[in-house]
Amino acid sequence: MTSSSDERLDARRDDRLGEALLERLRAALPEGAVVTAVDAIAERSSDRSGVLGQTGALAVVRPRTTAEVAAVLALANETRTPVVPQGALTGLAGAANAVEGAILLDLGRLDRILAIDATERTAVVQPGVIVADLQQTVAAQGLFYAPDPASAEWATVGGTIATNAGGMRALKYGVTRDSVRSLEVVLADGTVVRTRPDTVKGVASLDLTALVIGSEGTLAVVTEATLQLRPAPGIPRGVAATFADVPSALAAANAVMTSGSLPTTLELLDDVALGAIRAWAPDLGLPEEANAWVLAVSDAADGDEELSRFEAVLQANGAITVERAADAETLDKLLDARRALNPALRELRGASLNGDVAVPLGRLGEFFARLTALASERGVEISVAGHVGDGNLHPVVAFDGDDPEQVAAAHRAHDEILGLAQAVGGTMTGEHGVGVEKLPGLGGELSERVRDLQLGIKAVFDPRGILNPGKKFG
Amino acid sequence: MTSSSDERLDARRDDRLGEALLERLRAALPEGAVVTAVDAIAERSSDRSGVLGQTGALAVVRPRTTAEVAAVLALANETRTPVVPQGALTGLAGAANAVEGAILLDLGRLDRILAIDATERTAVVQPGVIVADLQQTVAAQGLFYAPDPASAEWATVGGTIATNAGGMRALKYGVTRDSVRSLEVVLADGTVVRTRPDTVKGVASLDLTALVIGSEGTLAVVTEATLQLRPAPGIPRGVAATFADVPSALAAANAVMTSGSLPTTLELLDDVALGAIRAWAPDLGLPEEANAWVLAVSDAADGDEELSRFEAVLQANGAITVERAADAETLDKLLDARRALNPALRELRGASLNGDVAVPLGRLGEFFARLTALASERGVEISVAGHVGDGNLHPVVAFDGDDPEQVAAAHRAHDEILGLAQAVGGTMTGEHGVGVEKLPGLGGELSERVRDLQLGIKAVFDPRGILNPGKKFG
Repeated sequence: MTSSSDERLDARRDDRLGEALLERLRAALPEGAVVTAVDAIAERSSDRSGVLGQTGALAVVRPRTTAEVAAVLALANETRTPVVPQGALTGLAGAANAVEGAILLDLGRLDRILAIDATERTAVVQPGVIVADLQQTVAAQGLFYAPDPASAEWATVGGTIATNAGGMRALKYGVTRDSVRSLEVVLADGTVVRTRPDTVKGVASLDLTALVIGSEGTLAVVTEATLQLRPAPGIPRGVAATFADVPSALAAANAVMTSGSLPTTLELLDDVALGAIRAWAPDLGLPEEANAWVLAVSDAADGDEELSRFEAVLQANGAITVERAADAETLDKLLDARRALNPALRELRGASLNGDVAVPLGRLGEFFARLTALASERGVEISVAGHVGDGNLHPVVAFDGDDPEQVAAAHRAHDEILGLAQAVGGTMTGEHGVGVEKLPGLGGELSERVRDLQLGIKAVFDPRGILNPGKKFG
Repeated sequence: MTSSSDERLDARRDDRLGEALLERLRAALPEGAVVTAVDAIAERSSDRSGVLGQTGALAVVRPRTTAEVAAVLALANETRTPVVPQGALTGLAGAANAVEGAILLDLGRLDRILAIDATERTAVVQPGVIVADLQQTVAAQGLFYAPDPASAEWATVGGTIATNAGGMRALKYGVTRDSVRSLEVVLADGTVVRTRPDTVKGVASLDLTALVIGSEGTLAVVTEATLQLRPAPGIPRGVAATFADVPSALAAANAVMTSGSLPTTLELLDDVALGAIRAWAPDLGLPEEANAWVLAVSDAADGDEELSRFEAVLQANGAITVERAADAETLDKLLDARRALNPALRELRGASLNGDVAVPLGRLGEFFARLTALASERGVEISVAGHVGDGNLHPVVAFDGDDPEQVAAAHRAHDEILGLAQAVGGTMTGEHGVGVEKLPGLGGELSERVRDLQLGIKAVFDPRGILNPGKKFG
């Protein structure tokens, strides 16, 4: 037989097996939960990373209960069918992208907030709950869910658990892991387990909760999360300052950080970002001589005291302008500069590649200097917006997508930025995850042995390798 | 051959193998690092749990460097010799207790603080550093290391990482895990790996750091830790209140917790504890009608504001007496009541068994009621001191050690308390760990599948099972 007739036979057998599995899935799930329409599959095949998912997924499957998730996984495990757990597809690393022949396990219908308990300081939620909905629901009861990724309005809690999402408030309150008490997960073979009791403290077991958080759907499927709430903080207020250059802004940011308490948020825009914003939105009134912008937010209970300290520190550290927002509404206006960045960058060169590095705080200056050198060497524009308080920066390489030479230079620069972060003791991904997009950079960061430990753990949880294959580990 | 001559031959072969290993250990390590004196081994064979370690350890080995730890583990792994990693032996679950034929790996000489960095907000330390020494050293630089177990004056950082230690400040600042950025560990075969970069954020890998923390020396040996520091908080102040009964005290504690911000510390003593203290230390002036005691500590920066709120809430919730400590020194005096508990309990009955349960906050009342019933049923005294803000209680069964009937009743009650915590959705260990002491209770808490996941992970890290065998997993 020729190899092409081999392939045809293989394909026909795969089709038959796929059909048999679909039939069993339909029998196990309610009407309408198994969708095989080409459009529906295409719609669920790629996240927002810009990396396209594979095109030949088997079906979108939409369970509504833990038992249904368990039934899907048991069938998938029996038939060695890949399963890609999915939330709202707002990810930026391709972690939820479709895989050939896979069940796209859309968890968006597991969307109930099951309990909010002020005494326990917990919310028990299903993975499909939208983060902002949860924030608002608990806020109405005087409570606070701290994780606040930029995608909060669309992202699901399950997605933020899968990626251990960070966001603007991580500086003060930590990342998603720091707000999760326990998880109900379905293992690859369909077994449902709880990672730990819902108590605040507890050390009876290895920390399986932390292990699942950030595992990007490779170890288990989260079907319920008991989340840690906090007392509602004060009203967020802010102060924005501009600086003559990035090193001055970094020094001022460090002075804020070491002034006695941590701001809730500390953001930075660099010279390239600021230049693009000024060109695109002149009405924002950013001064010509400003080449860096810093925003410090306080949600402390002590009224304006903390904010006044941040303001004084920024002033004393060479700010060109300082603008203070004493309430949430004015603060929102200060954020306009940050929000203008994405449209401004699109204007700048048309196409862009987004980064997510994190570097040690003491090496931010060195990182920025090397980044500038890299941009000039490769002939591309690299702008940086970042959560400077925790060293998590989002460098964006802007380029002309119609110029093949620029496209190549931009991709090269994008890859080199990852290496640059690693070279200063940092990581190529601070909060977006590895997915498929960052697999090539893993070797620069993790030792072979750490990779082997991870693959060993993966095999313990998912011996047949059905859960999100080809993601996270490289 | 008789079985006793079998045993003699086995013992002789073991001796020969042991001698050969000792020779290789001595060759690999500096003079004096390998100690085989019977006294020295006996001294390092048991922690403070009251459970005695096994008596036949091979040697105490005292490395001074990561490379020496790696050399010891490589030899141990090759020869399948058990290794028990040890700190200051202040543990309360037997996790560091000696095992027959084992190398007792005393990490106390790896005792240097390698770096303190205000910009990074980190301290890089070796595992043998004493927690209180670290606290004081960073405090001198205006920084703060939050974890503060009761044993801070003696416990090593490595020991607190191994157990994921909590303590009185865990309510506000979290447990040890929440203050660890990354670890350098030596794997069972002697390979040295870092769990992650030292950046604040980073999601390139599964959370191996959290996995090692609390693993009680079963997965790897920690040889260096990058710890998370915080800006120094305000001066700790406190308010202590007495109540007519435990339910009133619990209601007042809950009112404090939901009053707008969390105290740094929220402690409770129950009626039995208070009765014992009153009898033993009448000069403390605890009122006769008081059957519960609550202490709230504030280290907020806003001066006395938070403390005044806590005081008002305690007043409004039925306190009999309220005493306020406006500075650290007076606060220390308030803690005298708490400190009097252990000697008072010894006075009460002579012997005691200490518990470490954690229960959901909403079920504290039910737990206390069932505990009282249990005590009366078994004819023993059970006192409770606890970190009531996080539901982590330390019930102590006091009994007459010379009365065999009481001894049996006490042990039975002690075991039943674990089950009681589990029955209300809690855990038998909030912060002390499983060690060997709590192995029998594990089945009441963790599913078979969770146990299998843990054993699978253990096998990935330590395929020959040399690291602290017989501990943690049951």
